[in-house]
Amino acid sequence: MHFHDNQRKVDYVLAYHYRKRGAHPGHALAVISNGETGKDPRAGAPGDIDLGPLDALEEERKELREEFEHNLMEAGLELEKDLESKSQGSVFVRIHAPWQVLAREAEFLKIKVPTKKMYEIKSEGSIAKTFNKVLQKLSSPLKPRVPEHTHSRMKNLSYPFSREKMYLYNIQDKDTFFDNATRSRIVHEILKRTTCSRANNTMGINSLIASNVYEAAYPLHDGEYDSPGDDMNDRKLLYQEWARYGVFYKFQPIDLIRKYFGEKIGLYFAWLGLYTSFLIPSSVIGVIVFLYGCATIEEDIPSKEMCDQQNAFTMCPLCDKSCDYWNLSSACGTARASHLFDNPATVFFSIFMALWATMFLENWKRLQMRLGYFWDLTGIDEEEEHSRPEYETKVREKMLKESDKSVVQKLGTSTTEGEDEDDDDKLTWRDRFPGYLMNFASILFMIALTFSIVFGVIVYRITTAAALSLNKATRSNVRVTVTATAVIINLVVILILDEIYGAVAKWLTKIEVPKTEQTFEERLILKAFLLKFVNAYSPIFYVAFFKGRFVGRPGSYIYVFDGYRMEECAPGGCLMELCVQLSIIMLGKQLIQNNIFEIGVPKLKKLFRKLKDETEPGEADSAHSKHPEQWDLDYSLEPYTGLTPEYMEMIIQFGFVTLFVASFPLAPVFALLNNVIEVRLDAKKFVTELRRPDAVRTKDIGIWFDILSGIGKFSVISNAFVIAVTSDFIPRLVYQYSYSHNGTLHGFVNHTLSFFNVSQLKEGTQPENSQFDQEVQFCRFKDYREPPWAPNPYEFSKQYWSVLSARLAFVIIFQNLVMFLSVLVDWMIPDIPTDISDQIKREKSLFVDFFLKAEHEKLRLMEERPRRSPGAGRRSRGSPTASPAPSGRSQLGSSLSSGSQHTNV
Amino acid sequence: MHFHDNQRKVDYVLAYHYRKRGAHPGHALAVISNGETGKDPRAGAPGDIDLGPLDALEEERKELREEFEHNLMEAGLELEKDLESKSQGSVFVRIHAPWQVLAREAEFLKIKVPTKKMYEIKSEGSIAKTFNKVLQKLSSPLKPRVPEHTHSRMKNLSYPFSREKMYLYNIQDKDTFFDNATRSRIVHEILKRTTCSRANNTMGINSLIASNVYEAAYPLHDGEYDSPGDDMNDRKLLYQEWARYGVFYKFQPIDLIRKYFGEKIGLYFAWLGLYTSFLIPSSVIGVIVFLYGCATIEEDIPSKEMCDQQNAFTMCPLCDKSCDYWNLSSACGTARASHLFDNPATVFFSIFMALWATMFLENWKRLQMRLGYFWDLTGIDEEEEHSRPEYETKVREKMLKESDKSVVQKLGTSTTEGEDEDDDDKLTWRDRFPGYLMNFASILFMIALTFSIVFGVIVYRITTAAALSLNKATRSNVRVTVTATAVIINLVVILILDEIYGAVAKWLTKIEVPKTEQTFEERLILKAFLLKFVNAYSPIFYVAFFKGRFVGRPGSYIYVFDGYRMEECAPGGCLMELCVQLSIIMLGKQLIQNNIFEIGVPKLKKLFRKLKDETEPGEADSAHSKHPEQWDLDYSLEPYTGLTPEYMEMIIQFGFVTLFVASFPLAPVFALLNNVIEVRLDAKKFVTELRRPDAVRTKDIGIWFDILSGIGKFSVISNAFVIAVTSDFIPRLVYQYSYSHNGTLHGFVNHTLSFFNVSQLKEGTQPENSQFDQEVQFCRFKDYREPPWAPNPYEFSKQYWSVLSARLAFVIIFQNLVMFLSVLVDWMIPDIPTDISDQIKREKSLFVDFFLKAEHEKLRLMEERPRRSPGAGRRSRGSPTASPAPSGRSQLGSSLSSGSQHTNV
Repeated sequence: MHFHDNQRKVDYVLAYHYRKRGAHPGHALAVISNGETGKDPRAGAPGDIDLGPLDALEEERKELREEFEHNLMEAGLELEKDLESKSQGSVFVRIHAPWQVLAREAEFLKIKVPTKKMYEIKSEGSIAKTFNKVLQKLSSPLKPRVPEHTHSRMKNLSYPFSREKMYLYNIQDKDTFFDNATRSRIVHEILKRTTCSRANNTMGINSLIASNVYEAAYPLHDGEYDSPGDDMNDRKLLYQEWARYGVFYKFQPIDLIRKYFGEKIGLYFAWLGLYTSFLIPSSVIGVIVFLYGCATIEEDIPSKEMCDQQNAFTMCPLCDKSCDYWNLSSACGTARASHLFDNPATVFFSIFMALWATMFLENWKRLQMRLGYFWDLTGIDEEEEHSRPEYETKVREKMLKESDKSVVQKLGTSTTEGEDEDDDDKLTWRDRFPGYLMNFASILFMIALTFSIVFGVIVYRITTAAALSLNKATRSNVRVTVTATAVIINLVVILILDEIYGAVAKWLTKIEVPKTEQTFEERLILKAFLLKFVNAYSPIFYVAFFKGRFVGRPGSYIYVFDGYRMEECAPGGCLMELCVQLSIIMLGKQLIQNNIFEIGVPKLKKLFRKLKDETEPGEADSAHSKHPEQWDLDYSLEPYTGLTPEYMEMIIQFGFVTLFVASFPLAPVFALLNNVIEVRLDAKKFVTELRRPDAVRTKDIGIWFDILSGIGKFSVISNAFVIAVTSDFIPRLVYQYSYSHNGTLHGFVNHTLSFFNVSQLKEGTQPENSQFDQEVQFCRFKDYREPPWAPNPYEFSKQYWSVLSARLAFVIIFQNLVMFLSVLVDWMIPDIPTDISDQIKREKSLFVDFFLKAEHEKLRLMEERPRRSPGAGRRSRGSPTASPAPSGRSQLGSSLSSGSQHTNV
Repeated sequence: MHFHDNQRKVDYVLAYHYRKRGAHPGHALAVISNGETGKDPRAGAPGDIDLGPLDALEEERKELREEFEHNLMEAGLELEKDLESKSQGSVFVRIHAPWQVLAREAEFLKIKVPTKKMYEIKSEGSIAKTFNKVLQKLSSPLKPRVPEHTHSRMKNLSYPFSREKMYLYNIQDKDTFFDNATRSRIVHEILKRTTCSRANNTMGINSLIASNVYEAAYPLHDGEYDSPGDDMNDRKLLYQEWARYGVFYKFQPIDLIRKYFGEKIGLYFAWLGLYTSFLIPSSVIGVIVFLYGCATIEEDIPSKEMCDQQNAFTMCPLCDKSCDYWNLSSACGTARASHLFDNPATVFFSIFMALWATMFLENWKRLQMRLGYFWDLTGIDEEEEHSRPEYETKVREKMLKESDKSVVQKLGTSTTEGEDEDDDDKLTWRDRFPGYLMNFASILFMIALTFSIVFGVIVYRITTAAALSLNKATRSNVRVTVTATAVIINLVVILILDEIYGAVAKWLTKIEVPKTEQTFEERLILKAFLLKFVNAYSPIFYVAFFKGRFVGRPGSYIYVFDGYRMEECAPGGCLMELCVQLSIIMLGKQLIQNNIFEIGVPKLKKLFRKLKDETEPGEADSAHSKHPEQWDLDYSLEPYTGLTPEYMEMIIQFGFVTLFVASFPLAPVFALLNNVIEVRLDAKKFVTELRRPDAVRTKDIGIWFDILSGIGKFSVISNAFVIAVTSDFIPRLVYQYSYSHNGTLHGFVNHTLSFFNVSQLKEGTQPENSQFDQEVQFCRFKDYREPPWAPNPYEFSKQYWSVLSARLAFVIIFQNLVMFLSVLVDWMIPDIPTDISDQIKREKSLFVDFFLKAEHEKLRLMEERPRRSPGAGRRSRGSPTASPAPSGRSQLGSSLSSGSQHTNV
């Protein structure tokens, strides 16, 4: 954890691989700056001399490293590295930031640090206070046993670090004033900024890593998480109180997470925690809604009527030729099952969930503000972004091309304009156009691919169903078999495409060459989200809104292919199928992704690396393995690659929870169960399996919030349509209030079934060998059409139009009502919690007071000092002649105001 | 403009009235601090001795003033005031802020000031550049002739003022470094902060004004706007280039406005300007849409059919008894007129206007960001808000009551808790509840009042129409008379209630006792907006969506009172009436409000004051009137009372332009004409008629933006309903594509009219003495109902339901499509213009460079100075013994980093 002098802390590590040329061992040694010269390097490994071109590359890299490290030292950093003692191996450059560098950079980065001034955080009124106390006591076993950092009753007033106002801060030990995360952030900032003139003036460590000059750059973990002793470090604490399944019931130690991993990761876990806790009430209500469905299943008149053997509704055959007429009562099971999800409670539940989503987002905004206040993020600007190495390369290429052109065009003219052009040079829309076009085309292609796969599965279902119905033995459970297999195919396709699309999105974003890391991330997220969303939801959307709607009617069915009719929904309605589809895809996705991709694959990778290490006889490893340094240990971990996959998984899940909640009220429960595990799984990954990420300061979760609120808004419309179009809720209401004779649902089933005169069936589509026990003159089908004896048979009936009007009116009312309620909730809940905004205001006025007081104190000290001890001023640099000690307020004041005053506090 | 020494600038003026007691004239003089003692006060005016209780109050006020002015001087301000030489009169306390006060406060307020560093603003690509040049040249006559402040190609890097970094700024003259607006802002800030212990520790000037200790507090104008000479000042410049009708075609000199009036007013005019210029394209398209209606009026088949005398549609009578059957062709005129506004182009236009509203808001966000960048508003926090005097009074009252109670409860116990309680004391929900309840009840009452007035006008229309139809002479133009009078009544009521509601909203907000000025403003705006919105739009909403929809059908009409049927729309559809209603209310409101309230009333007020001045023989005025000082002149102007009425007028107009644009495409034209005048009218008011407002720094237009975007969203829904429900667009489409035999609209009129068997008219409602020339068996009425010969006569027919479905489907599609497009537009147009965000990023990195360079420079200077001239350090205060000049970088670096370095730049 420290340099060899056991004094200076290692704040950052750069790692690279070297392989030496046998001929010039001495040259390689010359660059070592802080290392003690050890034993002579051994002779080059066999085969060294063959590496001609590689050698040149290696040499160039070495020079780049030398320059870069020199520039780092210029910037004030202190470096230490081991000798390149062997023919090849890894070298770790350890970086330490001394106090003056930290102070300078902290001022530039406007890092807020605590001042001497503490103040009490105002408590709420007495009722809220006692309530809070009770809550605190009740939840104390759920609290992680971590020393509390903030959230206590006292808070330090924070102010951006300024070297001129050192007297404000409580600096006891300059080595520990900035914590490890801040120190490494500062070093990382310098690393990003430092140029390397040899490498075309590329900026920073990222381009050097991209061009393989360095292999890795990472800050060090605080120690080992599973060391046996009592020596506690933050990493161990995190492991014990957070990153174990054993503590799944506890709150997360958010402040500690933030302290260790930085604000960005802290916000992710805070968000995940809030989301998970918000799932609890919706799970409870979801279960209640489900139980209500179970409880009222016996009282549901339509399903009773359907199951009643006496109401012999003779239904039209489900396929041409091979299918027979059938009795509606045979579909009794599905009708009863569909009542579980198709009851008035789900309407209520989907309104609840729409408001829940709004509440969740509002509360997240509040929590974000609260954390921002306690983490001193208020008023930070966005951090300056450096261009990505890929962007710079592209710009350089473009400039080269253009300068070639201009050289050809105006040979002999002066090239002083070059500098001017340099400034202007960036990728214009014309340069980017091919990339954008490629992106657009690829995304369209991917979406088309997804749709065609969905269509393929539909065709599979139709053909398999037809094939199976030919066989008498399989005919009985055709629907179940077909549905089940089709859903599993869908699931597998979704899982495979999910991975492919992730890679494709990355590739496409690279083609686009965004300028900064942040735009890269945003573009990637948008593309990946679009593709994954379409992938995950298109089969569900099909079942919800399209299946069974383009069937035609007996006598004029719509055919996909010759002889294959479009598929219909089960007699219980499409809602049941939607529910099955949803639950299998959601559960399957969660289980498989969690187990395989998040647990299995990392395990395999580890195993693979271990095997590789064992086969490659490491010369150096044997020496290190006895007492591996922290940088060796961290080097062997996986690098951190961003939070995008973690967020993405949760966002897609959020979609499952909100978009179709009207058809599957149990979704929140399954999401909750998954997330309780997910939190600890992610935590474990961060604490034990990844190198320590750079602490990134950020105020919010960025584009994810927009995506979440977009899903929330979309869910209102999708639920409105699920209730209005997919479920039988509206037809029942219309029947009950307009057509029913006694205001009950008796006769509803009869009302929804139209008549068809079987003699009008097209030639060749009649059931071939009907074994139906009655003579069939009229068969029934589910639609609102005029009966055969009407003046315009089989046209849509008045009922059809009135039900359609009711459905559409419901959509309008539901959508606007829920949107209005959401806006109202949004408006009622202030984005900034009142106590926090009070606190922020109070902090401001406290600060002015504190500032004025400190200034007065300074004045007083200066007035007193020359009088008391004439030698006290010796430290201040200045005139060789004695100047009279100033007295009199006005003079002091004026000199103060012109900014010439200073103390060495 | 200056103190009597002609040196110190007057930055602020406090004015008060005094009346002296005859007995103690000497006492009154003692408080004058900077004034030269003049002649002795004259004897008290007659009647002075009677003013016993008034005297005490006057005495107390004088003491308060003394203390307050003392505290101001303590804070470093310099004061000058005239002698209270007469028995009564006005005294002006002139305030000057010296440099050290300005510097201190500028640092606290984090006012950004330009540094020495200039940089070039990056220009766009070459195509955009040339395009811009052409545009610049074309628009140059439209540019105000004002010296350009920013927007030129160079910009100073700005940095918050800091007394420790004085070397960064280009301070040439300390008197002019801060401009007048900034100076007065700083003084105002001190005035707001300074407490007055006598007056229960109330904070600041506002409470003193509220308790009549001072009468007014205002900064001075820059000079006279109509002085004849060539001496130019900003006010005169503004008057000549902005605040005259003669320059109505010119752009506004926004930067100068901001410099003179501050950011808040600058943003208002920038917003008004953007809105006005956005009205231009929508006016053009609106006129085109209207002309399209005019051009196609001859080709409109339905109106042709209606006018065709051969299609003798015998219509059912419009009222009971006195009305006769009538021929549809008699309504030919209105049918033709309604085509002007009820054609497919209006559908397109309302989609356009919805997107226009989004574009406008997006562009406003961008302009706001751009102005924020040029005005150095990026990264400012909200300013600290002081409590309103009313709030403090209320809190004090509450505390008094509670301390009374606690004294009663625990007599004898120590009252040390008092201080602790003090901190906690604020108005809780319980204290506010009566206010909230009152608010809620009053608003409900006001809305109910508005509704009942609307209903009253309906009743007026129904009864008058019935009365007029009795008389044969008036029968012919009943509809025109009734509609016109009713609309005028509506307009008058709206105008009167508008003023009343403005006052009510203010009163209600006062009852609510909001804590800060900002919350007061927001609450007031919300309430006033709600009331005025309901007031202005409820008659229009009635005509658009309710009129003619609850009529019943022949044979079973719905009656408001006995014998009075609900009113129907004209045969051309309600759209025509909506259009008339809208245009009269909108135009009338604009014309009357502009002329009477904005021009007439101020003129009257001025006249009144003049008359009063003339009648009151002013002793002092005669002396001053020859050479009135600027503070005398400004004192005679109206005080500035905020931008709320200006914004409100525009927002209501924005509603007229967007909410019902589907029925009145000419609205944008009228709005445009009004606004061109409005801009100059407001400008004139600010420049010539108001005291100079305090310069308020603000980043955005606050709650108005939310209201605007709310109206924008609501307009999508309202236009969807206007097109779907009010206009005949959907029925025509349905007829054309489903019922028409040849795909044209021939027969549409017949299709929309249902049959009624006149024999089924209720007894006593038949036309009494029918003079209709044919024998009538069936009369027709506009509705989709089953004919009398159907099995269920007069029920809604299938057509009714299918048209209804189509209408509702249209609403859903329109709403979601337009909302989606709006979101897309919102997302496509970045909130921060790319050049500005590039510029901001560049500024940041430029600043780090500049900062580092300045620091190096400082280091170099210090290294050199002791060597070159040993006496140069004399100015620095310090040790009496000579210290060796330091050399060596590392030492310098370390001393720098500990903050001990300084220069006297």
